[in-house]
Amino acid sequence: MSTFGTLFRVTTFGESHGKSVGCIVDGCPPGLSLVEADIQIQLDRRRPGQSNLTTPRDEKDKVAIQSGTESGITLGTPIGLLVPNQDQRPHDYSETDLYPRPSHADWTYLQKYSIKASSGGGRASARETIGRVAAGAIAEKYLKLVHGVEIVAFVSSVSNIAMPFINEQDERLFPEDFWELLNTIRREEVDKDAVRCPDKTVSDKMRERIHEAKEAKDSVGGTITCVIRNVPVGLGEPCFDKLEAKFAHAMLSIPATKGFEIGSGFKGTTLFGHQHNDPWVLKNDRLGTKTNNSGGTQGGITNGENIYFRVAFKPPATISQEQETATYNGVDGVLAARGRHDPCVVPRAVPIVESMAALVIMDALMIQQSRKTVASLLPPNPNIPAAMSGVIPKLSETQKQ
Amino acid sequence: MSTFGTLFRVTTFGESHGKSVGCIVDGCPPGLSLVEADIQIQLDRRRPGQSNLTTPRDEKDKVAIQSGTESGITLGTPIGLLVPNQDQRPHDYSETDLYPRPSHADWTYLQKYSIKASSGGGRASARETIGRVAAGAIAEKYLKLVHGVEIVAFVSSVSNIAMPFINEQDERLFPEDFWELLNTIRREEVDKDAVRCPDKTVSDKMRERIHEAKEAKDSVGGTITCVIRNVPVGLGEPCFDKLEAKFAHAMLSIPATKGFEIGSGFKGTTLFGHQHNDPWVLKNDRLGTKTNNSGGTQGGITNGENIYFRVAFKPPATISQEQETATYNGVDGVLAARGRHDPCVVPRAVPIVESMAALVIMDALMIQQSRKTVASLLPPNPNIPAAMSGVIPKLSETQKQ
Amino acid sequence: MSTFGTLFRVTTFGESHGKSVGCIVDGCPPGLSLVEADIQIQLDRRRPGQSNLTTPRDEKDKVAIQSGTESGITLGTPIGLLVPNQDQRPHDYSETDLYPRPSHADWTYLQKYSIKASSGGGRASARETIGRVAAGAIAEKYLKLVHGVEIVAFVSSVSNIAMPFINEQDERLFPEDFWELLNTIRREEVDKDAVRCPDKTVSDKMRERIHEAKEAKDSVGGTITCVIRNVPVGLGEPCFDKLEAKFAHAMLSIPATKGFEIGSGFKGTTLFGHQHNDPWVLKNDRLGTKTNNSGGTQGGITNGENIYFRVAFKPPATISQEQETATYNGVDGVLAARGRHDPCVVPRAVPIVESMAALVIMDALMIQQSRKTVASLLPPNPNIPAAMSGVIPKLSETQKQ
Amino acid sequence: MSTFGTLFRVTTFGESHGKSVGCIVDGCPPGLSLVEADIQIQLDRRRPGQSNLTTPRDEKDKVAIQSGTESGITLGTPIGLLVPNQDQRPHDYSETDLYPRPSHADWTYLQKYSIKASSGGGRASARETIGRVAAGAIAEKYLKLVHGVEIVAFVSSVSNIAMPFINEQDERLFPEDFWELLNTIRREEVDKDAVRCPDKTVSDKMRERIHEAKEAKDSVGGTITCVIRNVPVGLGEPCFDKLEAKFAHAMLSIPATKGFEIGSGFKGTTLFGHQHNDPWVLKNDRLGTKTNNSGGTQGGITNGENIYFRVAFKPPATISQEQETATYNGVDGVLAARGRHDPCVVPRAVPIVESMAALVIMDALMIQQSRKTVASLLPPNPNIPAAMSGVIPKLSETQKQ
Repeated sequence: MSTFGTLFRVTTFGESHGKSVGCIVDGCPPGLSLVEADIQIQLDRRRPGQSNLTTPRDEKDKVAIQSGTESGITLGTPIGLLVPNQDQRPHDYSETDLYPRPSHADWTYLQKYSIKASSGGGRASARETIGRVAAGAIAEKYLKLVHGVEIVAFVSSVSNIAMPFINEQDERLFPEDFWELLNTIRREEVDKDAVRCPDKTVSDKMRERIHEAKEAKDSVGGTITCVIRNVPVGLGEPCFDKLEAKFAHAMLSIPATKGFEIGSGFKGTTLFGHQHNDPWVLKNDRLGTKTNNSGGTQGGITNGENIYFRVAFKPPATISQEQETATYNGVDGVLAARGRHDPCVVPRAVPIVESMAALVIMDALMIQQSRKTVASLLPPNPNIPAAMSGVIPKLSETQKQ
Repeated sequence: MSTFGTLFRVTTFGESHGKSVGCIVDGCPPGLSLVEADIQIQLDRRRPGQSNLTTPRDEKDKVAIQSGTESGITLGTPIGLLVPNQDQRPHDYSETDLYPRPSHADWTYLQKYSIKASSGGGRASARETIGRVAAGAIAEKYLKLVHGVEIVAFVSSVSNIAMPFINEQDERLFPEDFWELLNTIRREEVDKDAVRCPDKTVSDKMRERIHEAKEAKDSVGGTITCVIRNVPVGLGEPCFDKLEAKFAHAMLSIPATKGFEIGSGFKGTTLFGHQHNDPWVLKNDRLGTKTNNSGGTQGGITNGENIYFRVAFKPPATISQEQETATYNGVDGVLAARGRHDPCVVPRAVPIVESMAALVIMDALMIQQSRKTVASLLPPNPNIPAAMSGVIPKLSETQKQ
Repeated sequence: MSTFGTLFRVTTFGESHGKSVGCIVDGCPPGLSLVEADIQIQLDRRRPGQSNLTTPRDEKDKVAIQSGTESGITLGTPIGLLVPNQDQRPHDYSETDLYPRPSHADWTYLQKYSIKASSGGGRASARETIGRVAAGAIAEKYLKLVHGVEIVAFVSSVSNIAMPFINEQDERLFPEDFWELLNTIRREEVDKDAVRCPDKTVSDKMRERIHEAKEAKDSVGGTITCVIRNVPVGLGEPCFDKLEAKFAHAMLSIPATKGFEIGSGFKGTTLFGHQHNDPWVLKNDRLGTKTNNSGGTQGGITNGENIYFRVAFKPPATISQEQETATYNGVDGVLAARGRHDPCVVPRAVPIVESMAALVIMDALMIQQSRKTVASLLPPNPNIPAAMSGVIPKLSETQKQ
Repeated sequence: MSTFGTLFRVTTFGESHGKSVGCIVDGCPPGLSLVEADIQIQLDRRRPGQSNLTTPRDEKDKVAIQSGTESGITLGTPIGLLVPNQDQRPHDYSETDLYPRPSHADWTYLQKYSIKASSGGGRASARETIGRVAAGAIAEKYLKLVHGVEIVAFVSSVSNIAMPFINEQDERLFPEDFWELLNTIRREEVDKDAVRCPDKTVSDKMRERIHEAKEAKDSVGGTITCVIRNVPVGLGEPCFDKLEAKFAHAMLSIPATKGFEIGSGFKGTTLFGHQHNDPWVLKNDRLGTKTNNSGGTQGGITNGENIYFRVAFKPPATISQEQETATYNGVDGVLAARGRHDPCVVPRAVPIVESMAALVIMDALMIQQSRKTVASLLPPNPNIPAAMSGVIPKLSETQKQ
């Protein structure tokens, strides 16, 4: 349904033809400074019309906080967020009254509900993602402020043009500079280029490919890679709510996604165990791993290393090119969808991926903070065998020696 | 946590050192014939010791129904399922009292809970999957009986040995025989070979690779492809509970998984929109698609075409080979895990993938049956504009002409 | 948290000091005619300023549908509902910056969140109930249209002035005219009097008592009785989600409530089993009960008889009378809350009780429609023993004889 | 359904005719000492055959921990609990194959599921409560150990024989010794008498009444009052999950319950606001209330005072006396249920009430521990206005003066 999360919970609403889109964020920690500008920054990165690579609709997408704060401080109560719909042109898509768009949700929504929004994609519209991005921006603010969590997504491939790490493979699975990139990439660098790919050589080719697709009234897909740094250890719930399962759920809930891989992903299936395993090593005050093929989680629980994953986006279904297809009543014909459509969604999807990642981590963090706190309040239990407590002798004592 | 599903809901329990493992299946439709044998068949496919490819532990894994049925008929009440633990050898893994296994969950569980099962992997053990498989077998029985749903998973790659469709690409994305395979593959064919790969040439190579890994006290990963046929149209809930999001969640909750792709997946990101889109065409009494790059869902909702997806499994973390790593207290050393370990889990993971798929579909079906029924009871509403009802004129009327 | 329901799910937001209050209704059946007026009717019954019995604040409380409908028809997607806040006077309650109001939520909110809304009751304000009432109006529209469900609540006592059925007791637990009242009472009759008590003699005394309280800058409590007719059989989920458990949850979530009883309630605990049991009898085409001490459910599941329950409301905590109490920092003093306060909330709480009742039934109905539909699709099962199918021979066959 | 709770979550299974009944407790804090005896103590208080007041079935009800602990310590993983069914006599209730018992769940279960357990009450049987009691015992152990929480329930009325506080009323709502009782009553005192009423004079009359009912093959109802001491401040979630709403839900989910009231309850509705309000006063290091008509929560959130509530139980539906009623197929007749039935359930229901109370508090505590911890980690926020932080100057500073 339209709710995501257990303790930090977002519920979204809105289609493009209604008065507004938005969401309710329930469970936000109280005492956090929060004003519209904190949220607007990610909405601006998501909205169409940012560059000539995206749809020319210049939606303003200005968010207004309805509740849950006073004097710019969160109260702990539900935060209502509203973004008015401005640039509505009802029935801009009139051919689609006759033809369900190939690979779009027109027909499946009709089958599900026996009714559909006539004015476009309804909830399958990219406009639905506004609520997610707004909510994610709040989660992210907390995570950054309290734990220094950094979430950076970037475009790693467009069509068959990919950053080298995707297809190349060396002894450490990915080339050396990929690991460096994970450690250092910042959102500012990503945004330097409209394509949002941090590799200048590659991004030039991507831009060209997107323009070609636009010219041809066609569309192209791509992938987004996301890294999350400084995630606290211990997040993720066995067994069904492993953190990677939650990430996968979150990412595949974004429109147009077809795949998800974390850490070594599909490429890692070709390694032997002795190559894939990440050996333990003492780092600062705790264990860490020498390599990071696991991608930051083991057994579904964060180990403190960088989390990184990649998400596949298909080429957008709505294209202006003529397509041979059938009408709702099964008559063969030709559809050329009018209107203004994104030839490629991945640049705009970057903040959506980041936001969904923030929602996953924030919720997992809140659940783990509960487990950790309730366990920590138990009196010391001398009956716990050494083999169950893991650290023999205590790490700190060892270091003193 | 340990519960999956909304209306058809499974909750699992159990580690390898306890008295039993099992689950509670809540929400099963009443009136279904159900005896232990219906469940045992999938448990037998999951259990170790089936062939010399897997661990030699000969666990019996006999399930006993505790509740929810009478005279072999389901009552609609929770079904308690129990599988006693038999072949326990406490502390077979004693080196792991000192060393957290690289890439295993020993250390992350300890961090999460400040305590861990000394006798092995705890809930991160593959033994946890017994409850899922048992529950999935019940879901599958209903789906097959009522809707003719067929769920067949098979091993599509082991290490770098892959079935041709994975790396080859033709105009239709996958080679022709792949599409045929999706239509025809049956579980009996999959089980003819211990590797559970239906391509004899490929499976011979896979077997050899697994034996090599076993000899070398090493392990290998692989991928499983799953096809689901005859799924009713309309399943999946926008926006966060798109069916592919639920599949991704379910699959990434299986131990050792690192990736998920549905339909065209990562490969499909390289296509243009006009290549990737699945045109509509009249099939029997309703619309269908000419191609199926979407993989059976559009906008997160099933369209009646075959659902197919692929899941990545890393090489198992526990290997008997010596590994340079650190102890819990951060001292460098060498770990060689004793005991009997699977060199490759994908053959045994086939029924796990099928079971999780069945759980996802069954739950989505039950939710959609509610939506459909409540909507169907509304009196005819003459105010619904034609453009919102999609079918103009009614498909049936058209066909009469 | 701020979400209620499983398949028909409402999430609310809003305090009195923010821009708006409202809710998202997720899971509404598609194809239902729905315009603002359908919702406004219950909001108008809830709002202050309806009579001189309630607070003089004349809040307009005009609802605007943001999403989920097109051309006045529900789409099955989330319905965003917004009610702007108009009559805000920030810091009208300034004494309460120093003094937590006795028996109000000021101090507990502060303890929970370490922060509180300075401008009044925050989420503990009666204004929070607007979202519930709006959502309930939608549920009610469906229930009435499809199943003829009638939900009527009325004020059954104010202070110690009670309708006769509350304290009197005859052989059938309640006096004869109470049972008649349950069968016949309509909302129009309830609204004839500002007190919303359908017994004219009693309501006159109630009105007088409320005026006395108002004069004395004091407040009075009361009870609301609610009857629900024509509820389908089979609603309610064993074991934790018995329908009465859901009603109790819903009612005790309304501000200022202290008690709930269904059917015979507390009075029924004094009867013997042979008096309390409701014997079965053939009614029309199915079984019904001669008496209805059960109040419409047995084992937590509806039996088709009238559901009736009673809810206790304490006197409102905010009074203008001087009260000896302590400041936030523990200094004894005297608080006289300025501002305009309801001397008695029960007349305005009538639509809130009705709305929460509608939400409970609608959600239970949607869950049961799923169970019923999936079970009905199973092929006839000849293995079901007669003793498990209950009806031997079929009721319909018996009646034919 | 059969799951209760969000972070501390119990899922139950089992009918009387199956192999076992039990539950899975998910989310239990790790590191807690836990053996069967910790749980058995409450199961023994619940089981039949404890005295000649209850049914003579001598069920052993021995619990066995299946998982989630090692060496008597909880692991944080799901705890499987199993209680074998021993004293089964299939079809002891054969008249009930023809007649649905009046006011029992036979007919409603059949309507809900189109099938029912032939061997008795199925999930509506009191045997279902074993899982709740077992889970509650674990919650209670944690609450007592860490927060000193004390939960004591007792029988406050049987039939029309009531402890004085129920019907008497003085200036402080209840007589003075009631408030004293709440502060001091312990479980040992309650258990001194088989009736579990701590007032010796009253309990003698109750016992006599129960024996009369037994002789007459009849049954009697009653009420249970429960007090909870030392509950941490801040538990309970606005708006739908107020703590009293959760209590009401939990209590009304116990078989045979018809009502719930907290604090002043129904009696309190007759007071004026100035009488009902609980003034604040400095107690030890924090605010407390002079009186406690609120019953320990305000705005749905605990204020640290004693929580107390009362639950109404109807007379058990199954009686051996002849009852005029109808068969499943609507034919009038006479039913005299054979078998051994409780003439009064309230003494045995005492631990059930306590257990459900423990489940509610434990879950609310875990949720609040999350909120509190995440908020406490925020850096000090100088932008928070004094009026929002409540304490001016700090309580501790005041006291230093």
